[in-house]
Amino acid sequence: MNMNTFGRNFRLTSFGESHGVGIGGVIDGCPSGLDVNFDFLKNEMQRRRPAQSLFTSERTESDEVMFLSGIFEGKTTGNPIAFIIKNENAQSADYENIKTVFRPSHADFTYYKKFGNVDFNGGGRSSARETAVRVVAGTFAKMILRNKGISINAFTSQIGDFKISVSIEEIDFSQIEKSPVRCPQEDVAEKMFVFLQEIKENGDSIGGTVTCIVSGLSAGIGEPIFDKLQARLAYAMMSIPAAHGFDYGAGFEGISQKGSQQNDIFISKNNKIITATNNSGGIQGGISNSMPIYFRVLFKPTSSISIAQQTVDIEGNTTEIKINGRHDICVVPRAVPIVEAMTAISLVDFLLAKN
Amino acid sequence: MNMNTFGRNFRLTSFGESHGVGIGGVIDGCPSGLDVNFDFLKNEMQRRRPAQSLFTSERTESDEVMFLSGIFEGKTTGNPIAFIIKNENAQSADYENIKTVFRPSHADFTYYKKFGNVDFNGGGRSSARETAVRVVAGTFAKMILRNKGISINAFTSQIGDFKISVSIEEIDFSQIEKSPVRCPQEDVAEKMFVFLQEIKENGDSIGGTVTCIVSGLSAGIGEPIFDKLQARLAYAMMSIPAAHGFDYGAGFEGISQKGSQQNDIFISKNNKIITATNNSGGIQGGISNSMPIYFRVLFKPTSSISIAQQTVDIEGNTTEIKINGRHDICVVPRAVPIVEAMTAISLVDFLLAKN
Amino acid sequence: MNMNTFGRNFRLTSFGESHGVGIGGVIDGCPSGLDVNFDFLKNEMQRRRPAQSLFTSERTESDEVMFLSGIFEGKTTGNPIAFIIKNENAQSADYENIKTVFRPSHADFTYYKKFGNVDFNGGGRSSARETAVRVVAGTFAKMILRNKGISINAFTSQIGDFKISVSIEEIDFSQIEKSPVRCPQEDVAEKMFVFLQEIKENGDSIGGTVTCIVSGLSAGIGEPIFDKLQARLAYAMMSIPAAHGFDYGAGFEGISQKGSQQNDIFISKNNKIITATNNSGGIQGGISNSMPIYFRVLFKPTSSISIAQQTVDIEGNTTEIKINGRHDICVVPRAVPIVEAMTAISLVDFLLAKN
Amino acid sequence: MNMNTFGRNFRLTSFGESHGVGIGGVIDGCPSGLDVNFDFLKNEMQRRRPAQSLFTSERTESDEVMFLSGIFEGKTTGNPIAFIIKNENAQSADYENIKTVFRPSHADFTYYKKFGNVDFNGGGRSSARETAVRVVAGTFAKMILRNKGISINAFTSQIGDFKISVSIEEIDFSQIEKSPVRCPQEDVAEKMFVFLQEIKENGDSIGGTVTCIVSGLSAGIGEPIFDKLQARLAYAMMSIPAAHGFDYGAGFEGISQKGSQQNDIFISKNNKIITATNNSGGIQGGISNSMPIYFRVLFKPTSSISIAQQTVDIEGNTTEIKINGRHDICVVPRAVPIVEAMTAISLVDFLLAKN
Repeated sequence: MNMNTFGRNFRLTSFGESHGVGIGGVIDGCPSGLDVNFDFLKNEMQRRRPAQSLFTSERTESDEVMFLSGIFEGKTTGNPIAFIIKNENAQSADYENIKTVFRPSHADFTYYKKFGNVDFNGGGRSSARETAVRVVAGTFAKMILRNKGISINAFTSQIGDFKISVSIEEIDFSQIEKSPVRCPQEDVAEKMFVFLQEIKENGDSIGGTVTCIVSGLSAGIGEPIFDKLQARLAYAMMSIPAAHGFDYGAGFEGISQKGSQQNDIFISKNNKIITATNNSGGIQGGISNSMPIYFRVLFKPTSSISIAQQTVDIEGNTTEIKINGRHDICVVPRAVPIVEAMTAISLVDFLLAKN
Repeated sequence: MNMNTFGRNFRLTSFGESHGVGIGGVIDGCPSGLDVNFDFLKNEMQRRRPAQSLFTSERTESDEVMFLSGIFEGKTTGNPIAFIIKNENAQSADYENIKTVFRPSHADFTYYKKFGNVDFNGGGRSSARETAVRVVAGTFAKMILRNKGISINAFTSQIGDFKISVSIEEIDFSQIEKSPVRCPQEDVAEKMFVFLQEIKENGDSIGGTVTCIVSGLSAGIGEPIFDKLQARLAYAMMSIPAAHGFDYGAGFEGISQKGSQQNDIFISKNNKIITATNNSGGIQGGISNSMPIYFRVLFKPTSSISIAQQTVDIEGNTTEIKINGRHDICVVPRAVPIVEAMTAISLVDFLLAKN
Repeated sequence: MNMNTFGRNFRLTSFGESHGVGIGGVIDGCPSGLDVNFDFLKNEMQRRRPAQSLFTSERTESDEVMFLSGIFEGKTTGNPIAFIIKNENAQSADYENIKTVFRPSHADFTYYKKFGNVDFNGGGRSSARETAVRVVAGTFAKMILRNKGISINAFTSQIGDFKISVSIEEIDFSQIEKSPVRCPQEDVAEKMFVFLQEIKENGDSIGGTVTCIVSGLSAGIGEPIFDKLQARLAYAMMSIPAAHGFDYGAGFEGISQKGSQQNDIFISKNNKIITATNNSGGIQGGISNSMPIYFRVLFKPTSSISIAQQTVDIEGNTTEIKINGRHDICVVPRAVPIVEAMTAISLVDFLLAKN
Repeated sequence: MNMNTFGRNFRLTSFGESHGVGIGGVIDGCPSGLDVNFDFLKNEMQRRRPAQSLFTSERTESDEVMFLSGIFEGKTTGNPIAFIIKNENAQSADYENIKTVFRPSHADFTYYKKFGNVDFNGGGRSSARETAVRVVAGTFAKMILRNKGISINAFTSQIGDFKISVSIEEIDFSQIEKSPVRCPQEDVAEKMFVFLQEIKENGDSIGGTVTCIVSGLSAGIGEPIFDKLQARLAYAMMSIPAAHGFDYGAGFEGISQKGSQQNDIFISKNNKIITATNNSGGIQGGISNSMPIYFRVLFKPTSSISIAQQTVDIEGNTTEIKINGRHDICVVPRAVPIVEAMTAISLVDFLLAKN
C-alpha cells in the first residue's frame, strides 16, 4: 500500500508522476475565508524550483499551480483545494537507459519489489519533483500561521563539513535568500559555494543539514504521549526524499553535555515564564513551551551522480550505470522551502484540533 | 487534546498515571491464535524495569502485567488485549516539594499550560513509567515478528563522548545484556560504566544514543510518499520520553561523505539482489530493501538532577529546586528495550496492512 | 481485524469479555477540567443494566465502574480515562451446552469463521454486555454536551406493531423513565407491556424502534461530503448490537410524501432563521440547521429465544438448541440509553474538531 | 471542517464544484497491476449521468474521466489515481436568482452557517454532481471485487408507494437496466413510470428506496465492535446526497416478526454451513456469514421542485422561490449506481485490511 495523505485535520493528498499529465494535490480541512496570496505562492514555488541555482537539477519547470477547486473570488471556501502542476519538460529519453537497471541508492529496486511494475521508481513518486505539491500545501499552511503571528524560517546549516558557527539566536533570516546555498552566515556560505563547485566538477554529490526555526508558537501545542510535537515534526521531516536524520534543541551536538548544562532554567520576564536557555528547542514533554522551536534535518548526498557505478539490472546481471540526467549536486538548498512547508502543514494540523 | 493511541492496524492505547491505580494499555488488532509467551513478556518487562542497575531510577516496581481481556487459554483471541500494571510504590511524598514549582526541562510547565491542572506533569504521563506499557505491546509485536523470522536488537552505542567503534555488521548481540550499560563492545562498556559512576557522584545526568538493528525484514515494507519506513520509525522513536534525535543508515556521521562514497552498489548474491554496503540503513525510497535496517535514537541527559537549580513556581516567583526523588542518571540503557518495543509495534503495523 | 476504537477526537477504546476479569474502556481526548458527576454516571449505568425490568435479561450485574486513570480530585485531567466493570456473575455453565453449536442469528458462526477460536462469539464481544462501556463514555460526552446546552432524549417508539402516535414535537420526555418499556405515550406503553408479557410466556422475542431527539445543537455541525452528521450517526447506531435500521427526519414513513409536502420552509422567528416544519430532522446537506435532530434506530428481535431451534454444530452436524440462559425478550427499552450514549459520543467528536 | 476522504485502506479523496474547472478525486491504496477496464468505467459513468432518462436532471454532461496519474500502460501502478471530470455545462445563470435566498431543504443555509460563504451550498458540493467522483472510485473497487468473484447489484425497489413484491432471491438482475426506472419487476416498473410522469407534470418530486445485493462475499468480513459491516455500509450510504434511511436484512418491514420467525436456522449444504433463510441480510454480529448481503437505502424526494415555495433570503426577509433549474424528479433510479459504488468502495476497504 501507499500512503499519500498527510495530516489529520489539515490534510494533503498528493498525486502524480514525472511522466503523464503532471503532479498535484488536494488540501482538505483548510478553513474557509482565507485570503489566498497568489504572489506569495508563486514565490514559494520559485524557491523550490529546480534550476534556481547552478547546483541543483537542470530540469526547468515553470511549476505553475493551476487550481481546480476550493477557491472562490480569491478566498478559500472550506471545500477541498485541488491543484495540478503540469509536466512540461518530461524528457523521458534521459531516463531511457536506466529503465531496466536499478540505480544505486535510488528507490528503483524497492518500488519494483513492492509494486512489481516495470515503471519502477513509481514514475518518480520518490523523486524531488513530488515535493512541489508539499510546497503548495505548505504555502496555504503558512498563510494560516501568519494570521496567528507564527513564522517559520529554515536555512542551510551545513554542507559536507562546512557548517554555520553562529548560534540559533544570532541567525539573520534576511540573509538566507541572498545566498545561492541559502546559508545565512556569509563566510560559510562562500565556502559552501566553492565546495559545491568542486563536487560538481567531479560529477559527485554531497549532503548536509537544514535547520528550521519556528517563532511565535504559543505554549501548549503537541499531543502526548504519542503525537508529541517533536514526533510529528520528525515524521514530517523524515517523509521528505533524501532526509536521513532529525534532531531538535541541543540534539546530537549536545551529546557531551550533562543535565546540569543542558537543562533550561525557568525565569520570569515581563510576567511571562520563559527559559533562560533553549536547549529543549522549545519543546518539553512533547508540548511547545512558547520558546522558539528549532530542529535540524539531515539530507544524504544525492544518489544520482554522473560518476560510473556498478549495479545490477532487473534480471540480476551485473552492469554499469552513469546517470547523465538532470540532477542536484546537493539537495540541501532546495530542501529549505520543503522543510518549511512540512513544518507549516504539521503545525496547522495541530492548531486545527481543539485543545 | 492528547493522543494516546499509536498505530493504524496494530493499535496500542495507553493510559495511567503514577498516582492512582496504575498504568496500562489496550492492544487492538493483534491477530488471533498467537501463543502468548508469558516468560518472554516477564523478561522484557524486567529489562525495562527501574532499579535494574545502579544507574537507573531507584524506584522499584515489580511491573507485573495483569491481563484483563483478549487472551483465552494462552492464546490471543483477536479481541482487544487490555492489561494493567498496578502502582505499588508511589511515594508521592518525594514529589511533594516540587508540586508548585516547575522542574527545569521537565513537562511540568507545558502540561500546566496545556491542561491547566495543578496535577501538572499529567500525573507522570510524561515520565519513563509510561513506557512499561509500550514494552508490553512491543512484546506482543515481537512475538508476531519472531514467527516471521524478523528480529530486533538494540543496544547502547554512545554515552556522553564514549561510543562504540565497531561497525554495525560486527556487533555481537549476545554481549548486550551482559553489560550493565547494554553496550556490546566490552572495553567501551567499561568506560561508560566508570563515567556513569562519576556522573552519579556529582548528582548530574548524561545522555547518549541507542542503536537498533532489524534483521530478516523482506523488501517492500514502507508506504510512500508519507508513511515511509523511516518516517514512521522516526515518529515512533521521537515519541519516547527524552528522545531528541533520530538518524538511520550513514546518518549524521556520514555527513562528510560524497554520493560516490555513500551510494550502495547493488550486487547479485545467491540469486538475490542485495547491496554491497548498507549506508542506506536498509531503506531506499521509504521502503525496506531486505538489508538490515539500522538507526540511532538520541536521548538527552535526564532533566532530574540532584544538583540545585534555579526555577520559578506557578506564580512566577524565582525559587530553587533540588530533585531528591528517584531518577535515572542516564536513560540510555533502559531505553534499549523501549526502542525495540516501538520498533516492533511500528513494523507489525506495516505488516498487518496488505501490500 | 477488529476495530474497538470509536471516534477521531473523542475516542473510546473498548475491551473485555463475559468470561475473565471484566469489560472496560479508555476514553481519550476528553477535555481537562470537566467535573465528573458520579451520581449521573451511576444513574446512566442503572438505566442500561440488565434486570431493570421483567422483560430484559435476568443476569444481574452491579455494573460498578472503577476508574483506573484520567480523573484527579473529581475532575478530568486531559489524560486518558480508563475504567473497568468487573464480571461478577459470569455463570458460564448457562452457556456450556451451546459451546459447540452455532446459535441461530448469533455471532457464533461469524466469529468462528473470522477468528478461528473455539471461544466463539468472541467471549461475548458481540453481546449486549459490551454496551455498558459505551454508556460510560456516553456519560462523559453528555456531561460535555450539557455544559453547551445540548440535550439528548431517546425513547421506545415502537415494539412489534405497537407504535407511538404523537408527533416528535409532542413527546413529553419526563414520561420516558416512568414506563417500564420507556415509551412516553402512556396508552401505547401499556399495550407494549401486555404484548411483551405474551411474548415472554411464549419464550419468544420481538424487536422495535428507539427514537432519539437532540435539542440545542447549533447550526454548522457535520463534515461533508463524507462525514455528514447523518452518516456518522448512522455509523454509530448501526454499531450497536441488534441494530438493523436507521432513518432520520420523515424517514421511511414519509416515503409517500412528495417534495412539496416534505420540504421544510425557512422562516424568520425572533431574528433567527428556522424551518416551519422539520421533516429534515434538523440536518440539511449533512450539516445541522439548529432545529432538533431526530432519528430512529431499528432493533431486531433478540436472537436468543427459549423455543427449540434447529442448527448445526462446529462439524456441521444438524442438532437442536434451546437457549435457557438469561436473555432479553426485547432489547428496545434497554437500547434507549445506549442510543443516547452513542449519539453523545458522536456529537462531542464533532464538537471537538475546530470548524 | 469538511471531510472529503473516505476509507482507511482504499481511500477516495473528492474535490470540485459546479462552477470552476470541474470535479475530481484521488484514489489512494488501489493495488498495483490491476487492469483498468475503461469501457466498463464509461458504462458506469453513463449509468449515473444526468439526462439518462426523462425523470432525471436535464443538465447534460459527458462526464468524461481524465486521468492525471496512477495508471501506466493500462494498469494501475500502486500510485494514487487522480482524475478530473471537467465542467462543460455550468449554466450558472440558472442558479443566479437563487443566489441570495435559501432553497427549502437544500444545503444552502447550513453551508452558509458553517462556512460563511456567499458561494453558499459550497458551489454544489452537496449536489448530486459530486457523486460522479464516487462512481469513478467505485468502478475501480468493482474491478477488484470482480477478480475475487464478488458482484454488487442495486435496483429501485420502491418509488412513493409503488414497491416491488418479489423476494430478494427472485430478483432478475438482467432486468434492472432494461427499465428506465431501474426496477427489475416489470409490472411495478411500469406503474412507477406512469407515477413519475404525473409527478413531473405537477412540478413536484418523490422519493423511494434502492435495494442492493452483494453476492460472493466470503464469511469473516467486518470489524467489530465498531466497524461492523452494517455500520460501515450505513455510513457509506448515509453520506450519499438525499439518503435518509438504511436497513438491512428483514429491516423495518420485519418489525412485526418475532425472534422465532426472524432467526436464520443454520444448515449444512454441500459441506458448507449456510442459513436456511436470510433475514440477517448476510451479516451476523457485524461480520459477513457468506450468505448474500442485502440492504435498502431510502432517498427523500428531491428538494428542488418547480412549484413556488416560501422561504427567506440571507437577511431573513420572507420571499418566494420557484426553482427552474435542471433537477431530478426522483433521484432513486440515478442513485442505483452510486449505491453500488459506495458499497464496492466499502467492501474493498475491508478486503485490503488483513484479517
